[in-house]
Amino acid sequence: MSSLPVKYSLIKQCQFSGARLGTLETSHGRVDTPAFMPVGTQGTVKAITPGELETMGTGLILSNCYHLFLRPGVEVIARHGGLHRFSNWRGAILTDSGGFQIFSLGGMRKVSDDGVLFTSHIDGSAHFLTPERVARLQNIIASDIAMVLDQCSAYPAEKGAVKEAVERTTRWAARARQAHKNDRQALFAIVQGGVFDDLRQLSVAALVEIGFDGYAIGGLAVGEPKALMYKCLEHTVPQLPAGKVRYLMGVGSPDALLEGVRRGIDIFDSVLPTRIARNGRVMTAKGYLPIRNSIYAGDLSPLDPDCQCSVCRNYSRAYIRHLLNAGEILGLRLTTYHNLFYLDHLMKEIRLALQEERFENYYCKMNPKLTKFYGGVV
Amino acid sequence: MSSLPVKYSLIKQCQFSGARLGTLETSHGRVDTPAFMPVGTQGTVKAITPGELETMGTGLILSNCYHLFLRPGVEVIARHGGLHRFSNWRGAILTDSGGFQIFSLGGMRKVSDDGVLFTSHIDGSAHFLTPERVARLQNIIASDIAMVLDQCSAYPAEKGAVKEAVERTTRWAARARQAHKNDRQALFAIVQGGVFDDLRQLSVAALVEIGFDGYAIGGLAVGEPKALMYKCLEHTVPQLPAGKVRYLMGVGSPDALLEGVRRGIDIFDSVLPTRIARNGRVMTAKGYLPIRNSIYAGDLSPLDPDCQCSVCRNYSRAYIRHLLNAGEILGLRLTTYHNLFYLDHLMKEIRLALQEERFENYYCKMNPKLTKFYGGVV
Repeated sequence: MSSLPVKYSLIKQCQFSGARLGTLETSHGRVDTPAFMPVGTQGTVKAITPGELETMGTGLILSNCYHLFLRPGVEVIARHGGLHRFSNWRGAILTDSGGFQIFSLGGMRKVSDDGVLFTSHIDGSAHFLTPERVARLQNIIASDIAMVLDQCSAYPAEKGAVKEAVERTTRWAARARQAHKNDRQALFAIVQGGVFDDLRQLSVAALVEIGFDGYAIGGLAVGEPKALMYKCLEHTVPQLPAGKVRYLMGVGSPDALLEGVRRGIDIFDSVLPTRIARNGRVMTAKGYLPIRNSIYAGDLSPLDPDCQCSVCRNYSRAYIRHLLNAGEILGLRLTTYHNLFYLDHLMKEIRLALQEERFENYYCKMNPKLTKFYGGVV
Repeated sequence: MSSLPVKYSLIKQCQFSGARLGTLETSHGRVDTPAFMPVGTQGTVKAITPGELETMGTGLILSNCYHLFLRPGVEVIARHGGLHRFSNWRGAILTDSGGFQIFSLGGMRKVSDDGVLFTSHIDGSAHFLTPERVARLQNIIASDIAMVLDQCSAYPAEKGAVKEAVERTTRWAARARQAHKNDRQALFAIVQGGVFDDLRQLSVAALVEIGFDGYAIGGLAVGEPKALMYKCLEHTVPQLPAGKVRYLMGVGSPDALLEGVRRGIDIFDSVLPTRIARNGRVMTAKGYLPIRNSIYAGDLSPLDPDCQCSVCRNYSRAYIRHLLNAGEILGLRLTTYHNLFYLDHLMKEIRLALQEERFENYYCKMNPKLTKFYGGVV
């Protein structure tokens, strides 16, 4: 392939760690990495417009094939010419296959080697998805990056079961690679293997052998201790090809973003910043702020005095608390915007530190704070 | 008073009707009239930011003293230096007293000449509000325009009861006038009298005798036929002083706005555009569009092909329907923005027609359409 649908360029590698600065070129713009992807499961980042994402500097968001397939269905997206025009988002889009969501359905699905039979969480209707169909659905959705259908193991899980999931994920990835037909869309594989180093190794080797435009690490951030996740990254990431982008799925906690970058991850996604925002938890330089707490009822200061976002420049804690307590939609908008801005700003700082070749210093300065404030289980 | 807190200037009067073009100068900017005020009951126009209101050209919004008194309480607003800084709104604010809300509580309140004892709709706590206290609360909230506490009659109501309400409203208005102490804040009276011409006349005469910075017509749009409301306006409005602004409370239906303007009304407010937006009803040049209807599932056209708002320029009906069906907050944002833009645009057209001395033509052209599309009870 002379013209790749997405092209990762490594700009600079930290000399003390796996951290790397790069860019990902897509047909919808360039994304500076390391980057955090806001999640727009159903074709919108919850409570936020595309224009607002642009003001934050977001270049890449995540959406979900499984959700869009069930509602509104891919036909209407196709009629718009793809998800970009359907949702009015000019930047790049990565669509997750929905493997994680389908395997989260528990008893509502039945897996065979052919594919997954499952029951819609919306209306109980039955659906059968195969690796081929998921690839073709994403071809139609026309995201910039499609993900293969994978089988995600829970944590903890028996090694035998995890091995089976790895092997099936490999077979499915090969079928997806064959079925994928969209020259402007990249296809990323998903490394599985739970917390078992040898299974991760097996998974990486098999997927790299098939060959993909990028590699995601799935099956982490599913309940295991963070230290175990970091150990697993240390083992797995160095096996991935340096010329391709590396994506750690489901991570959005500030401490874990920094640790992930240090271990060579380029992109991340998580519903964390947007979900907790709607529950009134905001991210600040001093950790989570439970803004609905009554101690903020008369507080004239911004959510985070160290933050330069438009919410922190214009609204007080007392006002935002009032909005959330009164059930006002604007409250959800403001906390969501702030949390996304906070993570985007963190990633900008990380990139700047990498650019200026002082990432390890930055890590040493930030890591104790982020671990103290965000290190616990969310 | 040499320097009035708000100053109404009549620019031009239609030679065929009561319609008039004017401006209302406030300490927070000039408002061109006739104008529609979006409602921000709890200190925010639901789902919308101040910046978005500015992009529409909104200069004056309504908030509610009763609601703000109960939550978050006026102390925290005072600490911010008033409602403008609390809510980050740079334009003008009119606060309703809450008379209408308190009288809507039904059995949960007890009226005496002294004031109203009522039970909070939020937590059941008991409160006693007097005309003086409501005036002082609004002094603290520091809106540009305060409204007197009034007694609003239901429709239909016995004439004797309406007469009592008129007399009490007059006595309360006089007490509010005495209690009101904020040189930068106007105080408007509220004309009551139901659909009884002689009682309306009585109410106007008594209130004008006391003297206020502007006059509202309350107790209409409470369930009476629209024709009866128009008849009542035809009788009442000409009795109001031409040098003061005239405000018809609770009207936001496009047909009624046009009819109200024609009868000499300068400002209007209603929750209609924002409330129906959240229920998936949008205003268009061809009437209400129930956007959640399945016929729009694959519709690539904008909400209103005749509308130039940012929602209609960027999003399809199919996408907005999907957002609402999927419970996405962005759907509520987009329908709300569009409906407010629609009414703001209607008022701009009305002002332009008045400016160019062709309002009666405009009325003759628009009235049949608006009556056909919006004439029914909402």
